[in-house]
Amino acid sequence: MAFFPASLENLIDKFASLPGVGKKSAQRLAFHMLSLSNQEAEAFADAITHAKHSVHFCRVCQNFTEDDICGICASDRRDHSVICVVSEPRDVLSIERGREYNGTYHVLHGVLSPMSHVGPEDIKIKELLARVAEGEVEEVIMATNPDTEGEATALYLSRLLKPFEVKVSRLAYGIPVGSNLEFADDATLNRAIEGRTEM
Amino acid sequence: MAFFPASLENLIDKFASLPGVGKKSAQRLAFHMLSLSNQEAEAFADAITHAKHSVHFCRVCQNFTEDDICGICASDRRDHSVICVVSEPRDVLSIERGREYNGTYHVLHGVLSPMSHVGPEDIKIKELLARVAEGEVEEVIMATNPDTEGEATALYLSRLLKPFEVKVSRLAYGIPVGSNLEFADDATLNRAIEGRTEM
Repeated sequence: MAFFPASLENLIDKFASLPGVGKKSAQRLAFHMLSLSNQEAEAFADAITHAKHSVHFCRVCQNFTEDDICGICASDRRDHSVICVVSEPRDVLSIERGREYNGTYHVLHGVLSPMSHVGPEDIKIKELLARVAEGEVEEVIMATNPDTEGEATALYLSRLLKPFEVKVSRLAYGIPVGSNLEFADDATLNRAIEGRTEM
Repeated sequence: MAFFPASLENLIDKFASLPGVGKKSAQRLAFHMLSLSNQEAEAFADAITHAKHSVHFCRVCQNFTEDDICGICASDRRDHSVICVVSEPRDVLSIERGREYNGTYHVLHGVLSPMSHVGPEDIKIKELLARVAEGEVEEVIMATNPDTEGEATALYLSRLLKPFEVKVSRLAYGIPVGSNLEFADDATLNRAIEGRTEM
């Protein structure tokens, strides 16, 4: 039932193709776009084109960057002997927010997922192995999400890394700081007990 | 805390400026945009520019159109003596979905709202009066939403239309078809009783 003008229907379809945006929201977003000034709408379109053209993967860590090598990989104030492996660029942001970690990252851009047909060649694994093979890396920290696929990916990587004789570690599991034992699920509580540390 | 490349941060900000899109969703949408092929991203940007350039208001009813006059206003199969007044273009879609109404529309693009500083000159009222003043219109149906602002707008318009001696009507209030008396709120039930019709 195409009822709006074709170019508006097209814009609605485009918004509806975005993750988590339903038909109704897509309509609202398209209407909003029409309510913007020409300049604002143009700026929006330009932002897409510009980001798409200038952002690519860092040659080293595969995080988003506009340069050949990202700021973290290029910095001599970071510890290049440690690599923290994450699945998505937003995870880098999360860890950086903690202002504690001073090593480098490696962004896999996904996790192994047989169900979604994501195999080892679909994520940035060989780039990680190449970095480790250069010999400067001493420790690789697995920081994939603590779910089935994240776990499987971490395990798979740790096996691949065995021959290089680097230390491979995993983020600690446990009760979130500031939360309540009462609300922790069983799996988390069991892991917290297993991973208990001496005081 | 700008951490992503500037053009990506800019794109995230743009998405975050959309109604109902928070910072996290904006990030997800921007990342999705980067994951598209160059062609797909370009098509998205073009859809915005194209819609913004080609869609404007119908000279008669103020609904969205790419032409001078929209399909409904230009059709000789519609009854041009009846105008249904709605607040938004999406309301036209809702009424058309019913396949019952055969008159024309008038889109106000808003409702009177003193709280949001929307006055009579901010919505398409004078365009409606101009249409009625031409003398061919016999009935104006108020189909603004049955909330305080929609009601006030309908009442205000009906007073403005008095001098033109056209019939002014209001959509019927009542129990939604297929719903349950048990779940109808008091105001709706009272309106349904007031507006009861003979069988």
